[in-house]
Amino acid sequence: MAAQPITRRLAEFVAGSHWRDIPEKVRCEGVRGLLNYVGCALGGCGDEAIGLAIGVLSPIFGPPQAGIIGHGERCDLLNAAFLNAASANVLEYDDTHLPTVMHPAAPVAAAVFALAEARGASGVELLHAFILGVEVSCRVGNAVMPHHYRRGAHITATCGIFGAAAAAGKLLGLDPVRMNWALGNAATQSAGLVESLGSMSKSIGVGNAARNGLMGALFAEAGFTAAEHAIEGKYGFAAVASDTVDLAKATAGLGENWEILANAYKPYPCGVVLFPVIDACLELRRRIEVPVDKISKVVVRGHPLLRERTDRPDIGDGRSAKVSLQHSIAVSLLYGAAGIAQFTDAAVADPAVRALRARVTAEDDTAIPVEAAVVSIECADGTVLSEHVKNGRGTPGRPMSDLELDAKVVECAGFRAGFVDTAALIAAIRDIAALGDGAHIMRMTVPA
Amino acid sequence: MAAQPITRRLAEFVAGSHWRDIPEKVRCEGVRGLLNYVGCALGGCGDEAIGLAIGVLSPIFGPPQAGIIGHGERCDLLNAAFLNAASANVLEYDDTHLPTVMHPAAPVAAAVFALAEARGASGVELLHAFILGVEVSCRVGNAVMPHHYRRGAHITATCGIFGAAAAAGKLLGLDPVRMNWALGNAATQSAGLVESLGSMSKSIGVGNAARNGLMGALFAEAGFTAAEHAIEGKYGFAAVASDTVDLAKATAGLGENWEILANAYKPYPCGVVLFPVIDACLELRRRIEVPVDKISKVVVRGHPLLRERTDRPDIGDGRSAKVSLQHSIAVSLLYGAAGIAQFTDAAVADPAVRALRARVTAEDDTAIPVEAAVVSIECADGTVLSEHVKNGRGTPGRPMSDLELDAKVVECAGFRAGFVDTAALIAAIRDIAALGDGAHIMRMTVPA
Repeated sequence: MAAQPITRRLAEFVAGSHWRDIPEKVRCEGVRGLLNYVGCALGGCGDEAIGLAIGVLSPIFGPPQAGIIGHGERCDLLNAAFLNAASANVLEYDDTHLPTVMHPAAPVAAAVFALAEARGASGVELLHAFILGVEVSCRVGNAVMPHHYRRGAHITATCGIFGAAAAAGKLLGLDPVRMNWALGNAATQSAGLVESLGSMSKSIGVGNAARNGLMGALFAEAGFTAAEHAIEGKYGFAAVASDTVDLAKATAGLGENWEILANAYKPYPCGVVLFPVIDACLELRRRIEVPVDKISKVVVRGHPLLRERTDRPDIGDGRSAKVSLQHSIAVSLLYGAAGIAQFTDAAVADPAVRALRARVTAEDDTAIPVEAAVVSIECADGTVLSEHVKNGRGTPGRPMSDLELDAKVVECAGFRAGFVDTAALIAAIRDIAALGDGAHIMRMTVPA
Repeated sequence: MAAQPITRRLAEFVAGSHWRDIPEKVRCEGVRGLLNYVGCALGGCGDEAIGLAIGVLSPIFGPPQAGIIGHGERCDLLNAAFLNAASANVLEYDDTHLPTVMHPAAPVAAAVFALAEARGASGVELLHAFILGVEVSCRVGNAVMPHHYRRGAHITATCGIFGAAAAAGKLLGLDPVRMNWALGNAATQSAGLVESLGSMSKSIGVGNAARNGLMGALFAEAGFTAAEHAIEGKYGFAAVASDTVDLAKATAGLGENWEILANAYKPYPCGVVLFPVIDACLELRRRIEVPVDKISKVVVRGHPLLRERTDRPDIGDGRSAKVSLQHSIAVSLLYGAAGIAQFTDAAVADPAVRALRARVTAEDDTAIPVEAAVVSIECADGTVLSEHVKNGRGTPGRPMSDLELDAKVVECAGFRAGFVDTAALIAAIRDIAALGDGAHIMRMTVPA
């Protein structure tokens, strides 16, 4: 199995990469990835799980080297990486690498921002490291999917740590040998269970991916050795991670095909199959002329997967609302929005939402692809309206536009971090490649 | 798979355990386990890997809550747990749970001592928590072996984290629900690769088992939720960890059969198959009347496994010396000792040792069991001496006596921690159940 030195090749690629090697399209997607990351972290920073984690960790914080997004306190770079990655992922609103269903940005971005704050890095160095980190996370993921996730490994955490280590190693300027050790130190710390999804424990896995990947790079910098064949070795990561290993996928087309181009951003903080349904409902709400409470019936037709995954009329909390067809439709029609605020426990308990959820039914239509949906409403006065969405926003055929991403950042910040000057923040991130001090962005995400 | 609520049962067992439930024999073995732990950590505290780790982490240490064995500096409890577990395991001199080949003490003891220093705990509370932690680590290991290790999971780290969480949870007084969360938080952080053995990276896995297990318990105490079925769930630890899962082993005879009674301590910091060989050589050295450099030939007869695992005449460093038959024999005959100092790079490079290594040959004898060996020496003057050891010290048929354990602690402390009053330290650990402040022991392991 050690025939292909995958770990070394990835290390050499990252260590040897120059900014001039990064295509313009990839650079742009990197900026969009960072923008989405910061937005999601602002949206998630007030989550109960994050508050509890800060409560446990703050009495043992090291020196104030780095910021915690949305919070005034500062802490050592490892705890900052942990907390910010957890915040960015906690709402399940972060990016999705479509081939692996991994959320690559949170562990990588949290690690590079924390390191940039502690050691200094220009905007372009930070962006470059972020792009390379996402590349490594996704490529390691490609090599062990689909069995890796199917067996129970939470890939955002288990593979995210490789990207965090690679990106941190890039900012540290590690040579290929030390970069190899950084990846090896990441491999032996790779952890995270799908079983933990649905509990706060999920956030520990994602936080650790950032923290421990960064720590692995710092250890490597100091000369702390690791297994040369940490990924491909007989007792290495791939052997432990999956029964369907295809190591070639980790390195095929390296430097030519960029995984970040397969990264998608969510327009709504819920399951991706619900995106076209919500789009249709928001459009119907614009067209409907009677009050929403006069709607007597809502019928959604979609791919069978839609009903299988999301036909949940009876839900008890915001977390389960994120995979409920009935709830997504009800809030979209009632509130004209399906953002973070519409998937809270409070929104689930709203009597008007509950009443409308009860009037929704779903029908399978195998002719409708998964990125499409048809929603029809009937009103008490006999009015019938229907909307057919072919490509939901945030699906591959209809990626989020720059303007939509900006609006998402505004929504996220407005939910729990009203102090943020979102216009200035968005402008700074969009112009990060020209920023002398990359950490400047982090300072815009915390209260003065 | 969730039919047997293993995680909950383990949580209830640990949370509900009373000191009066612990049999005397188990208590004694707990004391011996702690003694061996402290000794090994004193022996390992000056290792290069530990020095590098302290170098990286000390600039970001939190408040000085806990000691680092062998070092004057103090740090936050999580970093202390990390460093002390790594020190205790780095020389591969620590305890071995024979059914799983796990080294259970390091992650568990490091976590409970750090917590005892930070929060306070009596000696008996600390010992009780340690015994329960070892029990949990080993039982989780029993449930996923043998495939878990064979696939490449470094079981000392991957299962040690469960014990660290359980033991820390016990000291924190967690109720069964929170103890369940502590185990769940441990499960989603379980990590460590066999591939990392042979590099410094191994120590990160063992250190993290202590650190992250302790963190998982602290998070649970604060109300941070985790998967109820973290071990046995469809996408839980066992499903990810092994293809030969036997969940019943995790709970069979709980509270009646104690895994710590299957824990062995090493008389020499090398592979267990070498123990009878070294015993024979030390005895031969006592009997031989000519200078050792007059030995012209050494022949060892043993179980085929001995030759397979340890026939390594050409070695380059102390690490590989630990699995070299030739080196073990040479130092035992030349120095009359096979302790930490005899398995260093310096000992490997000693010309006299090198010369004697070259004169050693091994012969298979299927009639000799693996815990036995026959060593014969021929001298230049024609003298032939032979020694047959039936049960090597430290093997199940001849466990280390209390006196031998004490001597091991003295040897370990003498190697890198000469400032320690070993007589007082040993007396304090042997009397830990009467100690009002369990952390007192840690204060004896650091320079004044």
